[in-house]
Amino acid sequence: MNLAVNGERLLQRLEELAEIGAIVGADGDRGSARLALTAEDGQGRDLVVKWMRDLGLDISIDGVGNVIATMPHPSGLSPVMTGSHIDTVATGGRFDGNLGVLAGLEVIESVMSAGDELDRPLAVGFFTDEEGARFPPDMLGSLVYAGGMTVEEALDIRAVDGARFGDELESIGYAGGAPSPGPAPHAFVELHIEQGPVLEVEDIKIGAVTGVQGISWTKVTLRGQSNHAGTTPMSMRKDPAAALFTIGAELQRIVERIGEPQVGTIGRVELVPNLVNVVPASATFTVDVRHTDDETLINVEREVAALIEEVAAQHGLLVETESLARFAPVVFDDRVVEIVERSAQQRELSVKRMPSGAGHDAQMLARVCPSAMVFTPSVRGISHNPAEITADEDLIAGCQVLCDVMLELAGTTFEEAK
Amino acid sequence: MNLAVNGERLLQRLEELAEIGAIVGADGDRGSARLALTAEDGQGRDLVVKWMRDLGLDISIDGVGNVIATMPHPSGLSPVMTGSHIDTVATGGRFDGNLGVLAGLEVIESVMSAGDELDRPLAVGFFTDEEGARFPPDMLGSLVYAGGMTVEEALDIRAVDGARFGDELESIGYAGGAPSPGPAPHAFVELHIEQGPVLEVEDIKIGAVTGVQGISWTKVTLRGQSNHAGTTPMSMRKDPAAALFTIGAELQRIVERIGEPQVGTIGRVELVPNLVNVVPASATFTVDVRHTDDETLINVEREVAALIEEVAAQHGLLVETESLARFAPVVFDDRVVEIVERSAQQRELSVKRMPSGAGHDAQMLARVCPSAMVFTPSVRGISHNPAEITADEDLIAGCQVLCDVMLELAGTTFEEAK
Repeated sequence: MNLAVNGERLLQRLEELAEIGAIVGADGDRGSARLALTAEDGQGRDLVVKWMRDLGLDISIDGVGNVIATMPHPSGLSPVMTGSHIDTVATGGRFDGNLGVLAGLEVIESVMSAGDELDRPLAVGFFTDEEGARFPPDMLGSLVYAGGMTVEEALDIRAVDGARFGDELESIGYAGGAPSPGPAPHAFVELHIEQGPVLEVEDIKIGAVTGVQGISWTKVTLRGQSNHAGTTPMSMRKDPAAALFTIGAELQRIVERIGEPQVGTIGRVELVPNLVNVVPASATFTVDVRHTDDETLINVEREVAALIEEVAAQHGLLVETESLARFAPVVFDDRVVEIVERSAQQRELSVKRMPSGAGHDAQMLARVCPSAMVFTPSVRGISHNPAEITADEDLIAGCQVLCDVMLELAGTTFEEAK
Repeated sequence: MNLAVNGERLLQRLEELAEIGAIVGADGDRGSARLALTAEDGQGRDLVVKWMRDLGLDISIDGVGNVIATMPHPSGLSPVMTGSHIDTVATGGRFDGNLGVLAGLEVIESVMSAGDELDRPLAVGFFTDEEGARFPPDMLGSLVYAGGMTVEEALDIRAVDGARFGDELESIGYAGGAPSPGPAPHAFVELHIEQGPVLEVEDIKIGAVTGVQGISWTKVTLRGQSNHAGTTPMSMRKDPAAALFTIGAELQRIVERIGEPQVGTIGRVELVPNLVNVVPASATFTVDVRHTDDETLINVEREVAALIEEVAAQHGLLVETESLARFAPVVFDDRVVEIVERSAQQRELSVKRMPSGAGHDAQMLARVCPSAMVFTPSVRGISHNPAEITADEDLIAGCQVLCDVMLELAGTTFEEAK
């Protein structure tokens, strides 16, 4: 089936949804602020649900507010599902999440308009609180959908602003009765902006996402002796900042030696007392390392931990470490990845297999059905910012590939679930 | 003349002065808070001036509140002067500055009690705002005394709390009429706690201070590109924190290569936005380098500047640098240093020639007369803290050496002023 999506309709819906919670960035860029379960999130939901109803889709809402809209279909078979999220961070862009939901809606409308018969239905959903910017953890809705957290646990989560998840969900009218965990789809594929610079830099139109990098966050505190920077000879110092610099420089060498897709970042540093003429008493910093292969990630974690101990000992420092987060890598279903790759090629769109550096709802759905993702380029890799931009033609191309992939998945039989 | 100072009287006066503006530190240590030209500073001054008057000294107060008390003497010759300061930082100890003033008073009382005739008078002073903690710059009073700043300039300086120097000086009643610059003493010697760990670590009782290290403070801002720490490959980053770590590690190697007394410190770091999963947009940090030899210091400054440019270029960063402070090294008069050293040896006190890593009033007086300093050990090198401690016997030994040095200086003829 060769079906063309309606790109103009997709762009128009993206614009209309972005008006809800609209904000303007530092350089005049238009973004959106729809933190999970706020009034703005509720208005955004109402708009998308209205579009779903207008198409005559069957809508289910579960106990954490995940909304799944499914084409009516005589087969009773499980659907090919797509979807993403419509909540944003406080300084959100127009495409992160929204693209995946509205492109899914566009695919379904195109298919229904064409009147063609599919072997099984299509479905599009939006999952609650993907960003985790208001209620930790991120990807909360899809985690519950996939059975990784109970509804009861979720409802009692407190927001960074003190509000209770369950109360806020009630107040926007999205506490539904559909079962949790949700029914496993036949397959799941999510379209999302890359949120990184790789596709743009390499001039590639479609990313066939092979999985999500494993993430390891560690908070390290080195404690030494605060001293006068003028009167304390180097040999008599216990300088935690000096140790941090050595660790930071060595971390770069470790990451470089392992090569892509290994990344390593020290993004947060706090020295105490943080004065020009005082050798610090303590240095606190975070280490973020990510890799697609869990064994590699475990080895990097060990190597960095040994490095920290060694350098701290050389400087006579005490070390405290705390794991802030640890997620194993997710590997998407190669059969779905292959369909994404081939679909792009058939549309003569340049395509690259690549891991995702950020987390997405698809990684939760990957627990229950064959799953993968489609990436579309982000200008300058900017995201979580009103300056988040993807070119119109790339948005439409991504939607077209999503359509082709969903149609092929509807006709694919998976011998065994992943 | 072999004259013993009265150690108990010195300790008692130190206790009594410390009661004014008394504070208690985190571990129960007793310190003082007498920021320059506050009511507490005024009360401290009144107490010390009362002691000076009780001894029958001639007291002069100049236009910035420097107080000089001189023994009456028939010769009319310029005095051998000692002195220091009685203002403190907000979390001050009991000895920083106060020791030098009260030890000077003790020396004069001992000499006057003995009734011996000296070739010329002795004098003791305290200089206004040595700490600079309230009114920049530090060593302000002695700078004016030595002719490095006019009284008018000083009076218009604004405190960090907004107050005007001249108004605050009036309000505590210490705006005097003695001329500025002040009359050059015959010689100047200042007793001070080391404020560093060297004497204690090396188990030495007296430091014969050869000069004050030159100081260079530079503020550096590196600007790169803020990016997602998960989605941005290492090769596509412009990470100012990574550059900082390399610079910090290399600074340690440069300082180590030059060897003592070279010191180098990065004590202040600010990353923006300072988040665990974001490659920073900018890193701001300070570089503090110090050496006793100006040519060496200039070379280090050049080497560090080149290092910063090179590493920043490797990471594709913009560099902004700003000099926060630059003081050339001060070399004390070797004849006075030699007298300090010999006086300690004659009292069978271990002694070491050493530079000062911090600034002191003596470096200003060194502009106008032969000058040097006597250091006494600081427990664990701690200063600017209620936990600042020097053992009683070390306080008394320092006072005794000061006495011996002043008596010898009174009988010394300097062929040429330094």
